[in-house]
Amino acid sequence: MADDKALTTRAADFSAWYNELILKAELADYGPVKGCMVIRPNGYAIWEEMQKALDRMFKQTGHQNAYFPLFIPQSFLQKEAQHVEGFAPELAIVTHGGGKLLDEPLVVRPTSETIIYHMYAKWIQSYRDLPVLMNQWANVVRWEMRTRMFLRTTEFLWQEGHTAHATEAEAEDETRKMLGVYREFMEGWMAMPIITGRKTDSERFAGALRTYSCEALMQDNKALQAGTSHNLGQNFAKAFDVTFQTTEGGLAHVWNTSWGVSTRLIGALIMTHGDDTGLVCPPKLAQWQVVVVPIWKNDTEKTAVMEAAEAIKQRLWDADIRVFIDARDGMKPGAKYFEWETRGAPFRLEVGPRDVANGAAMLARRTGGPKELVPVEELVAKLKEAIPAMQTQLLEAAKARREANSLRSPKSKQEFIDFLNGPGGFVYAGWCGDPAVEAEIKEQTKATIRCLPDPEFQTPEQPTTCIWTGRPATVEAVWAKAY
Amino acid sequence: MADDKALTTRAADFSAWYNELILKAELADYGPVKGCMVIRPNGYAIWEEMQKALDRMFKQTGHQNAYFPLFIPQSFLQKEAQHVEGFAPELAIVTHGGGKLLDEPLVVRPTSETIIYHMYAKWIQSYRDLPVLMNQWANVVRWEMRTRMFLRTTEFLWQEGHTAHATEAEAEDETRKMLGVYREFMEGWMAMPIITGRKTDSERFAGALRTYSCEALMQDNKALQAGTSHNLGQNFAKAFDVTFQTTEGGLAHVWNTSWGVSTRLIGALIMTHGDDTGLVCPPKLAQWQVVVVPIWKNDTEKTAVMEAAEAIKQRLWDADIRVFIDARDGMKPGAKYFEWETRGAPFRLEVGPRDVANGAAMLARRTGGPKELVPVEELVAKLKEAIPAMQTQLLEAAKARREANSLRSPKSKQEFIDFLNGPGGFVYAGWCGDPAVEAEIKEQTKATIRCLPDPEFQTPEQPTTCIWTGRPATVEAVWAKAY
Repeated sequence: MADDKALTTRAADFSAWYNELILKAELADYGPVKGCMVIRPNGYAIWEEMQKALDRMFKQTGHQNAYFPLFIPQSFLQKEAQHVEGFAPELAIVTHGGGKLLDEPLVVRPTSETIIYHMYAKWIQSYRDLPVLMNQWANVVRWEMRTRMFLRTTEFLWQEGHTAHATEAEAEDETRKMLGVYREFMEGWMAMPIITGRKTDSERFAGALRTYSCEALMQDNKALQAGTSHNLGQNFAKAFDVTFQTTEGGLAHVWNTSWGVSTRLIGALIMTHGDDTGLVCPPKLAQWQVVVVPIWKNDTEKTAVMEAAEAIKQRLWDADIRVFIDARDGMKPGAKYFEWETRGAPFRLEVGPRDVANGAAMLARRTGGPKELVPVEELVAKLKEAIPAMQTQLLEAAKARREANSLRSPKSKQEFIDFLNGPGGFVYAGWCGDPAVEAEIKEQTKATIRCLPDPEFQTPEQPTTCIWTGRPATVEAVWAKAY
Repeated sequence: MADDKALTTRAADFSAWYNELILKAELADYGPVKGCMVIRPNGYAIWEEMQKALDRMFKQTGHQNAYFPLFIPQSFLQKEAQHVEGFAPELAIVTHGGGKLLDEPLVVRPTSETIIYHMYAKWIQSYRDLPVLMNQWANVVRWEMRTRMFLRTTEFLWQEGHTAHATEAEAEDETRKMLGVYREFMEGWMAMPIITGRKTDSERFAGALRTYSCEALMQDNKALQAGTSHNLGQNFAKAFDVTFQTTEGGLAHVWNTSWGVSTRLIGALIMTHGDDTGLVCPPKLAQWQVVVVPIWKNDTEKTAVMEAAEAIKQRLWDADIRVFIDARDGMKPGAKYFEWETRGAPFRLEVGPRDVANGAAMLARRTGGPKELVPVEELVAKLKEAIPAMQTQLLEAAKARREANSLRSPKSKQEFIDFLNGPGGFVYAGWCGDPAVEAEIKEQTKATIRCLPDPEFQTPEQPTTCIWTGRPATVEAVWAKAY
């Protein structure tokens, strides 16, 4: 049972607020192994709704699910030079199995490129076998030094798409298409606005040709990388000898992509919409979109009120609205309201004896505003309008917050530094393209280039000089301190 | 691409048939690590349908999903004496993380009782917190010496339910209820008849008070344990100190249950319904219940035929029938028929130019019988009747096969031995209850007691003497050689 203490406010300590919210809303808890969290039912239900929406979109775009082994021979990781360099420091290694020392240690997958492309080499023979479009929902392990629930945990849940194509252009199309799917999901379901763009070489996935990412701005003005899509080129195809007979009869290496989002998205959701009372969950991802709280003082009232609550539940259920009746005995209505607010339930319906007599219910919104008495017959229509309206409202509010905390085209290096050291947020500025400059900025400001934004996010008047060196800018970049 | 070689027949070599079917239908493949399989899309799609049906049933019976860590401190396993003895020989151990030797080695979960009840100790305070009804979908690892795809693999996918109750009676009710859910699923979705009953002490789950199981008979007359449900008593509650304040204000240990089914069910499905052509998948679990094969000789025909096929697809899709059009170019219709038969697709619709002219399609059933020309307007009605009919037909056929291969109340020890050494199957006979006799029978016949059957499966005239010793029987048991 969660305690009744109020959360630390976001203003007082954002990081404490985040951790307390997770524990109090019972989204997750600390496990006995450092860095491994337990995802509790309230948190897992959000993940299930995320999975449903994403899985449907993956299938609509022609992907099929499969499952590849957890354990990868250590030698596999070493076949792609950048890949092993990127992941070697983070690996968990199984050395013993069935009471015996293993001949070759096994890596617990940190990501599955190596084992998947090993299998693709076996399955792909000809251009007729292409494209191969697969996805898996799985757990992965990366040994992290500093962990935060949902944001960075030793074990996390994710999906990883892995595709193989006949041409570089097709692979690039796929990489961009899935980035688009992520954006559609993050904006349409999570009500979380993002910037998409390309990562610089120093922030690229270990083994990729190009990495694209989705970057969101949290309420503490730190950026969160919410998803990535990689064009792997032929790097893994060459390392694992994934070849196919071309239409012309020759032999060529395939072109691969991989893309993933994880339970980190739950952290992103919390830090995008949460308030000092607790979670605010966009209705499309809420386990219970509507929680009915029946109010009674005695058994006669209880019978009538519960009957009305059940009738409302049936009505909403039949309209595909996810509804739950909180009929717990021995708990005051106010305590229930508070608990469901902490847990982020988007809508609450209060049903007391007077409401039953009036054939109505009192509708309250997690996002605030006055309560509304709604006739029972109008409930479905009201909610069918209120659910998308709340989605839009949350997205617009988050977008407005992000824009209010973005700085475009600072006039000087000093303004750039002051912004990053002060309020923080996204800053759009010119960059000369020199990795040494990127590194120097990171060292001095703790900010990194989140991405080189896609055209729709670029500043209309593109910068012409590098904000740091004054040299000609080759590109516009977006900087922020990040999770 | 699967090759065109015919499968070894079941009669010639059941085990070879099984492996070849899996590879040819592309349900799974061997991975690079011994005992770890790759579940390919055709196999994983069946698992997804299984998950959907089971998950719905778990939620209907009040359970919520959660996710607990993959890694368990080695010391946890040692807290329950029987449990560690049962699982110690099968463990995979992580000794290194992030490049360093770990202070305490971590076990890759073989099952999650220990870590889950550790968390329950933290979450459960009072009788008001009970019952706790959770389930998780996860991968688990057991280091197996002899592996078979789906049936016994080092890593497998499963669900494990874990509940905590205030009383022994409630825990027993839950244990039995979930056994019932499994039976409903296995009979209603998999079309696989099972016997339910209690395991003997020697076959009990390591740490349980009582284990109940679902036992199915495969086509080679070997039994397969398809699911188990355990009443754990207070064994784990005592080991992990899971206590609650009772209504009377005292402190008591909770009563736990756990229950699970795994990707082994896909093996059970294959060996229950498969034939010498390949998989036969019950329509309720098929990725594609209907595969439409358009037939054309030239581009004009192709246009007309594809249009008709798309219209049929839309019609079926709107009626919630899972349908796929196999429009691959450069592959003859006969080759497509053969491939979809191998993969077990329940229904096939052939649509050629003449069918388009007639506004009809030719319906073929995976279970045989003459093809039927069905007017397009009648397709939905026809399939809505044919799908449950095929489910029933498969269940009845499997039940008839099982009964034809069961021996009830053998007259003598010799008949018992001859049956087990000869055709094999389930044999129902009296047992004196002595574990030494159970062990001796196992040694001499290789058969084990599958379960002590529940009343509805017992022989009407219950045996009075032990088939092995002639002593008075305490119970009827079902023996078989088993996977």
